[in-house]
Amino acid sequence: MKIHIINGPNLNLLGKREPETYGSISFEDYFRELQFNFEKVELSYFQSNVEGELVNELHKAIENNTSGIILNAGAYTHTSIAIGDAVAAIDIPVVEVHISNVMDREEFRHVSYISKHAAGVISGFGLKGYELAVESFMQ
Amino acid sequence: MKIHIINGPNLNLLGKREPETYGSISFEDYFRELQFNFEKVELSYFQSNVEGELVNELHKAIENNTSGIILNAGAYTHTSIAIGDAVAAIDIPVVEVHISNVMDREEFRHVSYISKHAAGVISGFGLKGYELAVESFMQ
Amino acid sequence: MKIHIINGPNLNLLGKREPETYGSISFEDYFRELQFNFEKVELSYFQSNVEGELVNELHKAIENNTSGIILNAGAYTHTSIAIGDAVAAIDIPVVEVHISNVMDREEFRHVSYISKHAAGVISGFGLKGYELAVESFMQ
Amino acid sequence: MKIHIINGPNLNLLGKREPETYGSISFEDYFRELQFNFEKVELSYFQSNVEGELVNELHKAIENNTSGIILNAGAYTHTSIAIGDAVAAIDIPVVEVHISNVMDREEFRHVSYISKHAAGVISGFGLKGYELAVESFMQ
Amino acid sequence: MKIHIINGPNLNLLGKREPETYGSISFEDYFRELQFNFEKVELSYFQSNVEGELVNELHKAIENNTSGIILNAGAYTHTSIAIGDAVAAIDIPVVEVHISNVMDREEFRHVSYISKHAAGVISGFGLKGYELAVESFMQ
Amino acid sequence: MKIHIINGPNLNLLGKREPETYGSISFEDYFRELQFNFEKVELSYFQSNVEGELVNELHKAIENNTSGIILNAGAYTHTSIAIGDAVAAIDIPVVEVHISNVMDREEFRHVSYISKHAAGVISGFGLKGYELAVESFMQ
Amino acid sequence: MKIHIINGPNLNLLGKREPETYGSISFEDYFRELQFNFEKVELSYFQSNVEGELVNELHKAIENNTSGIILNAGAYTHTSIAIGDAVAAIDIPVVEVHISNVMDREEFRHVSYISKHAAGVISGFGLKGYELAVESFMQ
Amino acid sequence: MKIHIINGPNLNLLGKREPETYGSISFEDYFRELQFNFEKVELSYFQSNVEGELVNELHKAIENNTSGIILNAGAYTHTSIAIGDAVAAIDIPVVEVHISNVMDREEFRHVSYISKHAAGVISGFGLKGYELAVESFMQ
Amino acid sequence: MKIHIINGPNLNLLGKREPETYGSISFEDYFRELQFNFEKVELSYFQSNVEGELVNELHKAIENNTSGIILNAGAYTHTSIAIGDAVAAIDIPVVEVHISNVMDREEFRHVSYISKHAAGVISGFGLKGYELAVESFMQ
Amino acid sequence: MKIHIINGPNLNLLGKREPETYGSISFEDYFRELQFNFEKVELSYFQSNVEGELVNELHKAIENNTSGIILNAGAYTHTSIAIGDAVAAIDIPVVEVHISNVMDREEFRHVSYISKHAAGVISGFGLKGYELAVESFMQ
Amino acid sequence: MKIHIINGPNLNLLGKREPETYGSISFEDYFRELQFNFEKVELSYFQSNVEGELVNELHKAIENNTSGIILNAGAYTHTSIAIGDAVAAIDIPVVEVHISNVMDREEFRHVSYISKHAAGVISGFGLKGYELAVESFMQ
Amino acid sequence: MKIHIINGPNLNLLGKREPETYGSISFEDYFRELQFNFEKVELSYFQSNVEGELVNELHKAIENNTSGIILNAGAYTHTSIAIGDAVAAIDIPVVEVHISNVMDREEFRHVSYISKHAAGVISGFGLKGYELAVESFMQ
Repeated sequence: MKIHIINGPNLNLLGKREPETYGSISFEDYFRELQFNFEKVELSYFQSNVEGELVNELHKAIENNTSGIILNAGAYTHTSIAIGDAVAAIDIPVVEVHISNVMDREEFRHVSYISKHAAGVISGFGLKGYELAVESFMQ
Repeated sequence: MKIHIINGPNLNLLGKREPETYGSISFEDYFRELQFNFEKVELSYFQSNVEGELVNELHKAIENNTSGIILNAGAYTHTSIAIGDAVAAIDIPVVEVHISNVMDREEFRHVSYISKHAAGVISGFGLKGYELAVESFMQ
Repeated sequence: MKIHIINGPNLNLLGKREPETYGSISFEDYFRELQFNFEKVELSYFQSNVEGELVNELHKAIENNTSGIILNAGAYTHTSIAIGDAVAAIDIPVVEVHISNVMDREEFRHVSYISKHAAGVISGFGLKGYELAVESFMQ
Repeated sequence: MKIHIINGPNLNLLGKREPETYGSISFEDYFRELQFNFEKVELSYFQSNVEGELVNELHKAIENNTSGIILNAGAYTHTSIAIGDAVAAIDIPVVEVHISNVMDREEFRHVSYISKHAAGVISGFGLKGYELAVESFMQ
Repeated sequence: MKIHIINGPNLNLLGKREPETYGSISFEDYFRELQFNFEKVELSYFQSNVEGELVNELHKAIENNTSGIILNAGAYTHTSIAIGDAVAAIDIPVVEVHISNVMDREEFRHVSYISKHAAGVISGFGLKGYELAVESFMQ
Repeated sequence: MKIHIINGPNLNLLGKREPETYGSISFEDYFRELQFNFEKVELSYFQSNVEGELVNELHKAIENNTSGIILNAGAYTHTSIAIGDAVAAIDIPVVEVHISNVMDREEFRHVSYISKHAAGVISGFGLKGYELAVESFMQ
Repeated sequence: MKIHIINGPNLNLLGKREPETYGSISFEDYFRELQFNFEKVELSYFQSNVEGELVNELHKAIENNTSGIILNAGAYTHTSIAIGDAVAAIDIPVVEVHISNVMDREEFRHVSYISKHAAGVISGFGLKGYELAVESFMQ
Repeated sequence: MKIHIINGPNLNLLGKREPETYGSISFEDYFRELQFNFEKVELSYFQSNVEGELVNELHKAIENNTSGIILNAGAYTHTSIAIGDAVAAIDIPVVEVHISNVMDREEFRHVSYISKHAAGVISGFGLKGYELAVESFMQ
Repeated sequence: MKIHIINGPNLNLLGKREPETYGSISFEDYFRELQFNFEKVELSYFQSNVEGELVNELHKAIENNTSGIILNAGAYTHTSIAIGDAVAAIDIPVVEVHISNVMDREEFRHVSYISKHAAGVISGFGLKGYELAVESFMQ
Repeated sequence: MKIHIINGPNLNLLGKREPETYGSISFEDYFRELQFNFEKVELSYFQSNVEGELVNELHKAIENNTSGIILNAGAYTHTSIAIGDAVAAIDIPVVEVHISNVMDREEFRHVSYISKHAAGVISGFGLKGYELAVESFMQ
Repeated sequence: MKIHIINGPNLNLLGKREPETYGSISFEDYFRELQFNFEKVELSYFQSNVEGELVNELHKAIENNTSGIILNAGAYTHTSIAIGDAVAAIDIPVVEVHISNVMDREEFRHVSYISKHAAGVISGFGLKGYELAVESFMQ
Repeated sequence: MKIHIINGPNLNLLGKREPETYGSISFEDYFRELQFNFEKVELSYFQSNVEGELVNELHKAIENNTSGIILNAGAYTHTSIAIGDAVAAIDIPVVEVHISNVMDREEFRHVSYISKHAAGVISGFGLKGYELAVESFMQ
């Protein structure tokens, strides 16, 4: 089972900035933990601040025979029809994850162009949301 | 660890109606499965079609020393400020669960008066969402 | 043929209050008249001011082998997604009735969460609307 | 008793196009059936695709001593203040009829400039709606 | 000086219906009075309930060397982009007149597709508005 | 003089939760104080979390010859057309009270379906608002 | 017959600024012309840039036995409920005048808090609008 | 204890105009009554139709060591951010009073820029509202 | 191959008015050119300012065995649900054409009730748009 | 004559995904066909999923002496002011093309930041739209 | 060079109230500092809480041969079309200044009727904004 | 002191296109001037048309010990939550600059996702805005 995590803009700052919102651990460290916990799953990880590169990465998953994608598109969640279209276009189930509770933040974060096409949405659990997302792909 | 599941209107029809949206297994059957899978957790379950009884049930959790609540308020999610206020008033973490992907349904289902006060939101995974919700309370 | 009439909030005041809007005859009296006029139809009648009890009553119609339901959900028509979902969930045709012309009243009464799932809508004919609704079920 | 039926745009295609929405019988055939069922009522019938001719026809009803009008203004229902004004201006009761359930179609069909001035509204019962409308004028 | 008055839908009922809103004198009678008062002006008059015929009439004014048009488009004022476009397309000054105070009526009457292209707007003065409109063309 | 106080959802938690918003005294204690201060007034008190039971309670006041009602419908203030209709239907003056300043909270709390039909509105004075409400019924 | 003209903010600049919008003659000069043309009418004139002074001036008209008021409230037309209330409170007919065609300018100028209470509205005729307004008071 | 009453636009007409909305007693007379009823309170009173003078008057209260302000800003309630800011800027508690039930009037009166910063709001009780407001400052 | 061109309101003025927007050649002249360029296509042409006649013309195309329709409904594009319904009802492909770039004009021209049911939309190319539309029907 | 085609996000999947919406031929294959059909035109082609690279490509057209651009910005059409600005900034005519009928899809696709600055818009004709676009540049 | 500073409502409280938002220095003190820093510029200063007096002051600048105006209209920025019109009417460049970052405050402060006509806008720099504004007039 | 200027989409065309809006000098030339004027400040400059690269550049400023950033995000100002989040995440003060007066352009340019997190905003002064921005960082 191959699960690919795709993180969007500003998530490279995780653990470095605004710990009260995003926690104090970097995603790289968390990712190693995650690999340790799900050793039977082939986990991979990608981050970019560029909207189009997230689209590219979603497309690549087709050739890579990825079983499932965990997508935290960050701020692009709320503005990118292009990413939403990419999620709709590929046949791989995509689980949308948000670290913070987007519904308790500004109103423009209450919109998601991805949710509609997602296999499921998990938000507000901090980094633990990624773990639940991996879990969601298990039988 | 005591986790209480509260289901709202029409969820008593689960497994009986509209299987293409809600699956074909009744919640009672699913609940037994859940108890089997998490035997160390003290799981309980309540359902009502009456908005105010859901408020009552949330209040009762205080006396019951409930560790966490899993709340699927069904249609009341989108209209009930009263339930949202109850979630905010009690000190127990509440995880909001939706069986179907509410963001892929009518626009009036995109609003939630509960999310803002929830410890996290899980939606679109079918009944598996309840399992992920229990998981979210685990260390 | 079994037809069940379900009336919502404040309709128990019919004939007692605001006669210029709702007429001066109580629903009980009207109901007897209706039974007299349609003696081949098995007519029954339920009223509640509680939204969730209207949901319950719609569910019960499944076991009762009701042929058709005449639903005047009163004010809940305009706010209750839960009742709309119940109408959608059961397989029994539901005719929506309003005594007054809701379109000639406040704008918040122009919305109905029930109409979409109803077999038909009749409004503005006073109590006669119930008679037309029964008629609509006849061949 | 003289009852005049006025049909608006595209209703001349009834029975010829989109049978899944409008049924497969032409209005002329249905009208003969209606005359047969209500032989004591003097029924007449008019159709036009021109908004202003519907206004004219409503005005004419004054001289014709029409007892009641059954108006299905089709698409003009949702856009014509002129027809709504004509309904308000004449003293003859007008029953608004829609064949399909307009509330289960596009949102721009949820508006009616006629309802406010109508003696009653009947929608979603297919052609049977006209029968119920005639019935509504009976004692 | 040739001034042409164009009246829209339902204005043929003037003096016959709703006298509290539109007065109790027919437009024909008023028109004779107007001709009497402005004997140096060549006044003419047209009425139609058909939107497109109002457009036609505006076009005809070009060939007729009309000096000015007084347009009361009635309900079409609020819905007809076509009439607004016709007013914009011809080079003849058009004064928009309303008998009643449209701003003290329903909100959908607060919009006018004509005003923007009109030489001026006069509303709320009853039939006297037409007199003021003729006056507005005088030096 | 008989004055009946009706409290809506979550107000049973008064004094137990969120003291910064709602004060630290329970309503039962406050009610005793109120009875002490207005000994010539026959004061009674009802609370429910169920919308329909608040409607029922408003109806009951008719038989009870209640002189006035003090209604704090809590969250239902902002969503319940049914309660607003009940206030309009009974002939007893209803004073609307809010403990907190609803206008300084979320925007969805700025709407009230009750105010329109209320004899007066008092909000933001904490529990003292009930005292002012009783006072308002005095000569 | 006493007619009082009240002009609002920036109208003191008439003839001095933006001649393409407001013409090149000062209001004082125009006023003399107006007095000359209507010598049987007792015309007076007031201008202020202060909203409250326009309210004061409307109130004063009561004591002055003014027969009619011509009000061009300028920008306050679109924002001042206070002036609208003053117009509604006094029993003197008020004719609303605008020099430019407000409907052909920014959308925020399409709103008027005065029109609803005005005896009539005249706009877009330049200074001639004042003349038409005086005319409107004549028999 | 020094309580200062500040009344806004058109309230100088109280008792002179529109008695069905505002009662038939002038504020001056009512004020004497109020002083009589609360003889231990030092009551003062100010009225202006000018928005900025209401701001000035709120500022002056700082030097005057006013204990509390009762503010009925009339129409400025719904449009004046400046007055709302002044209420927020001074440290004196301000009780907002409305004589009529603003929620039963036009929609633009449902907005208040003052409420958010007010110590409390009282509306719909007629002049009695001022008495309740004074009462609200008592222990 | 039979292609029928239907033009709506004000398009009869083409080449006569507002050449900067619509060009300086009349549609009749352009039509001859078009016939010359596509001599293998049987081209016909209809224009009306009356909405309902455009509906009629669309219906007639059924009997005429028209292969395709080129529809420029002018201003009715933005207001006519009736024409949109007619396009949906007939089985003939309809290409929507606009001479000017409607998206660079007023916002109310950005809406089209036709586009949704059209085989394609071409706008902004001047009269050349009709040529492209004919081309679009070619293999 | 040099015509440059610029395709936006997800259009690299053409022919591979969602054939019911986008057809089953890849753009590369279609492009060869297009070159074959217009052999006198120098056609070139660029695709990117990155918004900013589409902006870059539009800028480059200036140096390349491109005669015309055919732009299908895909999902960026509806969100990118930056691309719209680039189209406005360069002096080369840009024809906007959409393969599917965007007006028959989600409402957020009804907005285009490009149309306003485009020389013309062609949508809904499938890949044939590109052919019509090239045609539009011909004399 | 003559530069005139005009401050609007509540800015006379600068340095006295809400120092966390507006700083702790009075404008008079700051103004002296400013004069010291720009000794070659003839600086003057005016403040009023009355909207109309700000309009008057803007008009006066014409006679005073003012080279430039620095305008902080405070709360009137968001509500005063009259002030916006005055800025547009005079030929003197007006720089709009805000002490606090209005975009980080309530949404009703995001609107400015002045910006459109301003030579430039400076906001969020505290009192330093006035210095930058003076600087902006320098060569 | 290190100040970094970041320019967004289409600003590379400065001085080449639309001089009436953006002036006729390239940013490179202006930048040299700026360096000359502020020789004690270490000024650097970056431009990209790619949204994500602007995010990257903002992040890099952390390692570079940049004292302040001057950000003109161009069109992304109005659409990019990602850039707004980046500004919020880094601890470096960011001054938002716009060359043209965005409030005098299309309404979609009145929104800024950056302003809220900016140390200040300067707009409408042409290139001089950058100079004022540098000035704003000086003591």
